[in-house]
Parts: sequence; structure tokens; C-alpha cells
Amino acid sequence: MNKVILLNARPVGKPVSSDFKFIEEAMPVANEGQVLLKTKYVSVDPYLRGRMNDSESYIPPFELNKPMASGVVAEVVESKLPGFEKGDFVTGVLDWKEYQAHNGQGLMKVDPNAADLSAYLGILGMTGLTAYCGLMEIGKPKAGETIVVSGAAGAVGSVVGQIGKILGCRVVGIAGTDEKVEMLKSKFHFDEAINYKTTTDLKAAVKAACPTGVDVYFDNVGAAISDAVLANINRYARIPVCGAISLYNATTPDLGPRIQPTMVIKSALMQGFIVSAFAAKFPEAIAQMSTWLKEGKLSYAETVVEGFDQIPQAFMDLFEGKNEGKMIVKV
Amino acid sequence: MNKVILLNARPVGKPVSSDFKFIEEAMPVANEGQVLLKTKYVSVDPYLRGRMNDSESYIPPFELNKPMASGVVAEVVESKLPGFEKGDFVTGVLDWKEYQAHNGQGLMKVDPNAADLSAYLGILGMTGLTAYCGLMEIGKPKAGETIVVSGAAGAVGSVVGQIGKILGCRVVGIAGTDEKVEMLKSKFHFDEAINYKTTTDLKAAVKAACPTGVDVYFDNVGAAISDAVLANINRYARIPVCGAISLYNATTPDLGPRIQPTMVIKSALMQGFIVSAFAAKFPEAIAQMSTWLKEGKLSYAETVVEGFDQIPQAFMDLFEGKNEGKMIVKV
Repeated sequence: MNKVILLNARPVGKPVSSDFKFIEEAMPVANEGQVLLKTKYVSVDPYLRGRMNDSESYIPPFELNKPMASGVVAEVVESKLPGFEKGDFVTGVLDWKEYQAHNGQGLMKVDPNAADLSAYLGILGMTGLTAYCGLMEIGKPKAGETIVVSGAAGAVGSVVGQIGKILGCRVVGIAGTDEKVEMLKSKFHFDEAINYKTTTDLKAAVKAACPTGVDVYFDNVGAAISDAVLANINRYARIPVCGAISLYNATTPDLGPRIQPTMVIKSALMQGFIVSAFAAKFPEAIAQMSTWLKEGKLSYAETVVEGFDQIPQAFMDLFEGKNEGKMIVKV
Repeated sequence: MNKVILLNARPVGKPVSSDFKFIEEAMPVANEGQVLLKTKYVSVDPYLRGRMNDSESYIPPFELNKPMASGVVAEVVESKLPGFEKGDFVTGVLDWKEYQAHNGQGLMKVDPNAADLSAYLGILGMTGLTAYCGLMEIGKPKAGETIVVSGAAGAVGSVVGQIGKILGCRVVGIAGTDEKVEMLKSKFHFDEAINYKTTTDLKAAVKAACPTGVDVYFDNVGAAISDAVLANINRYARIPVCGAISLYNATTPDLGPRIQPTMVIKSALMQGFIVSAFAAKFPEAIAQMSTWLKEGKLSYAETVVEGFDQIPQAFMDLFEGKNEGKMIVKV
């Protein structure tokens, strides 16, 4: 039998175990024109929370009693599709199933010798592209400028900061544990890192960490952390808004100081984005990131949880900040 | 004797009469290399409120016990400066004085026969340029799109809406009296206009007025009006933030729903600006606006108050929404 994880209920606030349902179905078979895929690594990402709501967004919502889906690395265990062979590894947005048949559309073959397979869900996958494209296309950092990253120890934030350092910027990260703060400084070479949970005056802490002000704020979180950074932006600051993890589970609108006066006074730019808008830049981004990886200029953190059954819990743990870097489930 | 208006006290909240002081000084004389100017028209503008604070902004604050200043049209009554003759009219940022000597730096000669002199403080001056540049350079409207303008009956808003109509957009204005709403539709040919003071559900009213959603939101006001518009933006919406008149007098931060989730979900862009950032576009803008004026495609509203002594009151009346279009004092 084949295990499958369905959306059982739409979460109210934070997702809970009962929002998911495990079922078993008959083993799928590959028909003509299909491959049979075995799931190896599953990516869990904050943006999936949005797809669990029944509301219009940039991607359609998941349907109740249908499988959840996310970025997956899978092995081709049988192929009736030209171009794919048994033993190939592929990535794509796939259902949360142990095995699935697939027509190949949207699958990309990946080389298990060029990088760890899980990297294709992270630094060489959606999160790495998100960091690279959001920073380069919206943040447009120049050497000598100061970049602040919230959610800095996450999969996107840790890459943003490292790219900032490669480009010659001062980089300050904001994260939620002392361990993460330490990792940002030692492993990812951030100039400064701030634990927002133990800092009483975050606005003052950002100011102290950014003596010449904030030129680029790469925002992964929204909420009060962002208020504190916005209070320190320079004229012509750029603010790529990549996510608002702290707000995804909100059941009522989250109130904060209105930002329009700051935006005018500072002639600042804020732009929300999803990585697919920059698809034309992906080849450049992947080539550049692969080079930096090989040169040892870029490293990445993963939190790898083992077992297909752990996928929902790993996803829920994202909202408790339990991951360092990319959260991955190894099946 | 020569009347002068000084900044007497920095306002707390809305400016009041006692924040200004009238004094008399000896009549100025034009020295060699100077012109003697007689003030004819004075522009009062919301942005001046920011200069009355003792805080860093995009222009230096006014000094206490020094003259206030703003855009002025003046007549040259005596010239000891080559290039200027008695009877010339000029515009520039000048002190609130009946007469003043000036070295000519930053003055621009204007033609009293090409347009009404007051137009050089409005549609062919800073407010017209603000409307044109903010809309074209940040809003980037395309024919068939929907533009919403707040502060629509003001000097900037009314021009934004008209340019939108010229470009083939649907244009919806938000203003604060039924008279303004009527003027937006009859005089400026807005497709719809909403009186936010008499509308109980502004979000629903914006939705009804914008059946295909909001592509460009030209924001002059900030605050709850903007919350209602932001709730209706389309994917890839552009939001030039020109001003935040409703927030300029705030003594405590104004709270509202945080916008980051909307910015991400809609891949929206918000950019604050001041018109001087677009100086390179001014010649194009003035040429285009002059052409539209001559073709009768563009008209403008002015509220003209008479008397030098009325300058502070006219300025204070801006924050009560007493103006239709550009607020001008005729001296």
C-alpha cells in the first residue's frame, strides 16, 4: 500500500495535526507516457500555509481531502516516458505520497553527484532562487551598503546574508534563538546578529548594529520585527518582502504603525514578490550560486527530519522556529 | 514697512495660529547682483507641515523665529541683476515676505500670457509635476487599468485622475465632501468618486467602484482610506505614496493592519517619493502637461484666498480639507 497525506481541515491560526490525514491507497503504476516516482526528500515551506486557506492567492489553494504537495526530490523507479530512465533523480512540485505516477511535466532532472540531493530543494532550488532574485532584483545592494535580514537563520535568510557579504555589504541578521544568532555569525559570517526574543528595544538594537542605517531590508517575517527595522531605514531604502511568516497564521488583522509616512520621508521602495516572477533570471542565478558553492563562498544549513510520517510535524515546526536553515524531510 | 511671517513655535499635532508670528521689518533694498521681488501668489502645501518639525526629513526643517517659505510667484520691481528686468514674473521657493531681495539663484522666469500666474504654483509647478512623475514613473498605468486616487480633489490628486483618463484608464477618486465628489465627476471626468466621510464600508465601496480591482493606487493620505484600497489591489499593483496628509499631524504612531502579507500575496510595489527625485523628467512633464492644457484635456481647480495675512490660515485649512484643488494665497 502507498501512504498519502491529505488536507483534512483548513487551519484556523496555526496548523495542527488534525488538519492533516494519513490514508493508504493502492500502489500506483506507471502507464505509457509516465514515470513512477519514489519520494526521497520533501521540502516543507511557510508559503504552504497560504495554500491551506480557501482564499485566492498567487497559487490555487489545496483542496480538502486531496493530497498536500510541495517541492520534492524523487527517484525514477520505473519509466515509460522517453527522456527519463530508472535511477534518474528529479525535482518538482509533487504530492505528499510515497510513490506517484507522473507525466513528466514540470519535472527537472538533477545530478546527485554535483550536490547533495536535498540541496535541490534549498540553496539550488526554490529557497536559494528566492534569496538570490529577491535580493538582486529588488534589493539591488551596492558594496558598502547595509543589509538587514529578518528570519535570517531560515533557508532564504541565510542565503540572502551570505550573498550580501559576497557583494561587499555589511549584513545584520535577526533571528529567534541564541544558537541561531551564533550560527549566523560563525557559519554564515554575518557582521552582526540580533536575537529578537531576548532584545527589549529592537529598534535601538538595529540602530546600534547598523551605524550608517539600513539600505536594504530583506523581510521574511513582517510584524513588530519589521517595524523596528523600518524605523532605521535610509533614504532610498529597498525592502523586498519575501514572506510574512509571523502573520500567516493570524486570524485577525495584525496591527502596527502605518508605514506610509516613513515611505514618503525616506523615498523608500517596498515590493512583495514570489520567486516565479523572476523565472527569466533562474539560469543566471543557478549558475552563479553553483559557482559560489564550489568556491566555498556559500554554505547552507538544513534541518533534516526523517520519515514520511513526520512531514506534517516538520511543517508545523516551521512556525515555532525549530528549523535552522532549510527544513527537509528525508523519506 | 515690510510684513514677514515667522515660525513662532513647532506645532504639536495640527498647526495653530500661535505657531506663526507676524512681524514688520524695514523695506528690503536690491543690492548689486540682486532683484527686489514683490510677492504675488503664495503656495501653501501639506508637505510644509513636515518642515515645521525639528526632525530630519528630505528637506531641512524651518528654523524658529525665521521666516516660513514656500513656492511663490513674484514680480520683479527692481533689478540690479543681469537677465532680470522690472516687470518680469518669477517662481521659486521664497520667504513669506511681502517684499524680498534675491540673488536669482533658483528663480525661474514665467510667462504671464501663456498661463495664469497661479498655474505656475500648481499644474505647471510642483503639484502638477508631482502628479505626472509619480503616476508615470512609479504607477506606470496601462490603458484599461484601474487607478484609484486618494485626496483626489486636491491639487495633486485631481491632476493624477485626469492624466489617468487621458491614458485610457478607469479612474476612481476618494474625497471628503459631496461637493468634491461632484467636482471630480463633472469637472475632472473621473469615472467614479467616493465620499469617504459618508461611506460606512469604504472597502466595499472601492470594490464596487473597481469591478476589475485596483492596478494603481496613488496615495495622498495614508491611514484607513489606504487600508480600504489596499484590500482591493490586484496582483502586481503599483502604489506611489505621494503623501500622508492624514498622518502629518499625528503625535503618536497611527496603527493599522500591517500590509506585508498583502504585499507578498499580490506581488505589489509601494514606493514613496518626492518630486525632486524625478528632476530629469521635468522638461518632458512640463511640455506634455502644457500641451494637454492647450488642448483642453486638462483642467485644474484652485482655491484662492486673498491677502498676505491669510497665509497661515490657508495653510491650516489644508488639514481641514477646505480646499478644492490647489490652495493659493493671492497677495
